[in-house]
Amino acid sequence: MRVDSTRSVEDDLTQPVAEGGLLHRRLFLKAGGAGIVGAAPLVPSATYARSIGEDAPGWMRTPGLPLRAYGSPSPYEKDVVRAVLQPYGEMAPGTGVTVTPLQHMRGSVTPNGLHFERSHNGIPEIDPARHEFMVHGMVKQPLVFTVESLLRYPMESQLRFIECSGNSFFISNLFPEAKEVPVGHIHGLVSCAEWTGVPLGVLLDEAGLEPGASWLLAEGADAAAMSRSIPLEKALDDTLVALYQNGERIRPEQGYPMRLVVPGFEGNMNVKWLRRIKVTDHPTHTKDETSKYTELMPDGMSRQFTYIMDVKSTITHPAGGLTMQGPGLYEVSGLAWSGHGAVDKVEVSADGGRTWADAQLGEPVHARSLTRFRVPWRWEGAPAVLQSRAYDDQGNVQPSRAHWSKQYAAGQLYHCNAIQSWQVAADGSIVNVYA
Amino acid sequence: MRVDSTRSVEDDLTQPVAEGGLLHRRLFLKAGGAGIVGAAPLVPSATYARSIGEDAPGWMRTPGLPLRAYGSPSPYEKDVVRAVLQPYGEMAPGTGVTVTPLQHMRGSVTPNGLHFERSHNGIPEIDPARHEFMVHGMVKQPLVFTVESLLRYPMESQLRFIECSGNSFFISNLFPEAKEVPVGHIHGLVSCAEWTGVPLGVLLDEAGLEPGASWLLAEGADAAAMSRSIPLEKALDDTLVALYQNGERIRPEQGYPMRLVVPGFEGNMNVKWLRRIKVTDHPTHTKDETSKYTELMPDGMSRQFTYIMDVKSTITHPAGGLTMQGPGLYEVSGLAWSGHGAVDKVEVSADGGRTWADAQLGEPVHARSLTRFRVPWRWEGAPAVLQSRAYDDQGNVQPSRAHWSKQYAAGQLYHCNAIQSWQVAADGSIVNVYA
Repeated sequence: MRVDSTRSVEDDLTQPVAEGGLLHRRLFLKAGGAGIVGAAPLVPSATYARSIGEDAPGWMRTPGLPLRAYGSPSPYEKDVVRAVLQPYGEMAPGTGVTVTPLQHMRGSVTPNGLHFERSHNGIPEIDPARHEFMVHGMVKQPLVFTVESLLRYPMESQLRFIECSGNSFFISNLFPEAKEVPVGHIHGLVSCAEWTGVPLGVLLDEAGLEPGASWLLAEGADAAAMSRSIPLEKALDDTLVALYQNGERIRPEQGYPMRLVVPGFEGNMNVKWLRRIKVTDHPTHTKDETSKYTELMPDGMSRQFTYIMDVKSTITHPAGGLTMQGPGLYEVSGLAWSGHGAVDKVEVSADGGRTWADAQLGEPVHARSLTRFRVPWRWEGAPAVLQSRAYDDQGNVQPSRAHWSKQYAAGQLYHCNAIQSWQVAADGSIVNVYA
Repeated sequence: MRVDSTRSVEDDLTQPVAEGGLLHRRLFLKAGGAGIVGAAPLVPSATYARSIGEDAPGWMRTPGLPLRAYGSPSPYEKDVVRAVLQPYGEMAPGTGVTVTPLQHMRGSVTPNGLHFERSHNGIPEIDPARHEFMVHGMVKQPLVFTVESLLRYPMESQLRFIECSGNSFFISNLFPEAKEVPVGHIHGLVSCAEWTGVPLGVLLDEAGLEPGASWLLAEGADAAAMSRSIPLEKALDDTLVALYQNGERIRPEQGYPMRLVVPGFEGNMNVKWLRRIKVTDHPTHTKDETSKYTELMPDGMSRQFTYIMDVKSTITHPAGGLTMQGPGLYEVSGLAWSGHGAVDKVEVSADGGRTWADAQLGEPVHARSLTRFRVPWRWEGAPAVLQSRAYDDQGNVQPSRAHWSKQYAAGQLYHCNAIQSWQVAADGSIVNVYA
């Protein structure tokens, strides 16, 4: 069964459009006070009214807290943080990742405090007045830019996801058995922000490219001197030397005072603490693109330079890390993205991929950005397997885990864009499964 | 002189398009390493290269800082904060505003820590497990919602500005003489975030409206019980009961755990700490819409219920709070918005409004959101007066200060959308002037 997309909102939208209780994505779009959804409360925990006026809460009876110069989340949200995963523990507390807690978030923008990070040797404490960024190599005039000088250049803003190529390793070939971890642990090495900076093309233009220039080496000012090769064509297309993240200066763990933003390309090509760009006529084969960030193929070879993060999606609620609160109406919602372009369609299944319903996409859909998708679901309390499958406008489709897995050798972890399956049990628990 | 918008990028884009050195908005759009901009550095402070490789900075020689669960800005950005303006000082430290420091920001999204706030009696410390939101009045079935129950409802995300109707009071009739204050003090009572929540129409639908229902009363759970009347039509159109701000739960000063988001309407109608909505057949004339938030007219009458924030813009750099760093190339950039719809066009003048150049708008332009505009400017070091003028897609144009001012009585401060003038002196100082 497939959703009938020609179905009009005048039809009875409360009838399922796929097995397991998935409802039409447009169910709520025409709500207007006339009771089209039904007379009973949608959610049992919405109780009928009693007077709350006579029982004003304590916080209405006394003046509240003072105004503040810089805000932070409510103390009641203290557990909504990035999980810190350090493979070498306290031996190297600056090496590893922190993951965005997707199970506690809605919308598509990631707040700066929760943007995922990946660092190879800690977060350098860079004094912006002493930081220099050099463009050299195959250019007519090598140039050095300070932060102060870059702030005078023309800037662009782009709402873009950045995804570590190791994202979703918890469902990759590294783990033949499904691990019971929250959705943030599995897929939280992707985040989305409005990045603002100087188009790299403007700076290369000023330096003047020499004939034959075709690659760049980009290097960070961290203690790992993290470096990657980038094709010149991408650098001239939409790459930014970004100084701002969601309106304010880039956070230290995101590359303060400047990072490369290479839209849709794997995370570590978006070089943080950007120190230099060397123009070359060949890829440099740095340690970060030979010893790591390559894909292990079934024949034992390694595939290098897989830049673009493929089309992908995951349901973020209901999902691992959350629990169902009894039968009734829910919104199934998640995130979809593609490094190739814009998300075109997302389908949701509640029966492990047998039948699918089209999800509503958050408008406007930005290319190479996170897109929120949503579909209403009436859960009757029976076991279910929830999945989402994304399509992009370049004709790419998200593969099943079995299909993705077969392309690579055992232990391959990078570039995993397999369909995520969440098993909902009758008791409301939700776990990661391979289905 | 007006910019010739038919001019193609094949023309010489380095020639001015308006007086005072304003250049074509598309100057940098085709930069591609071929040196079209010119051989000399655009900005004198970009120095020619020397080797920086032999002189690796200290932060590359030692492991960096550990990973963190929740991030914060670099210590070097400690002065980029909201200015706290408390009219009653320490007598009422929770009454007043904090303003977004626009002079230090780029892009169009406001990070959560810097979103402006306006509070009438402090920020309540609400326990979300004890907060209740009631829908009552002219409904078939009054309902009470907890945070937990609302989290199960269908949600929408909208990237929207919120602007205090008192924004820009520093250039209103309250100040017949221009004050020397930064752009954030003047215009920083506007911010922009992605708000996610339940469409209010869905909840009103569930309660069921009675015949004759035409208005709402919305009340907050703060110690001021801040309350406003809202036309039902707007509530059913695009109003949200928002729980998330840029992906994470709403900040305490923005209404944690929930606020109304009434896109394009004046700030305090976006009721924070939302406690109840009463459906009525008339406006309630609360203290917050009779004693305040009305406009003083020349004939001595007060105009009530001016909901929509008019089309507006301001240059944010170069602007008050910043200083020019010597002659040469700059980007003139700022923000434009309209509560009526989408920004259609922004013009920039460097000669106090005599000639105008079209600015480049950040794409995509969202309705009722902040839009970043940009135009390149070659400053020769002579005195100049910078202005911006916004147009929206509903045919509205931002007025001059003289024109705006004449509509109201002396002392009128609300809904000031007058054109902002920045006087740039030969020494590089920039001040607010009435021009």
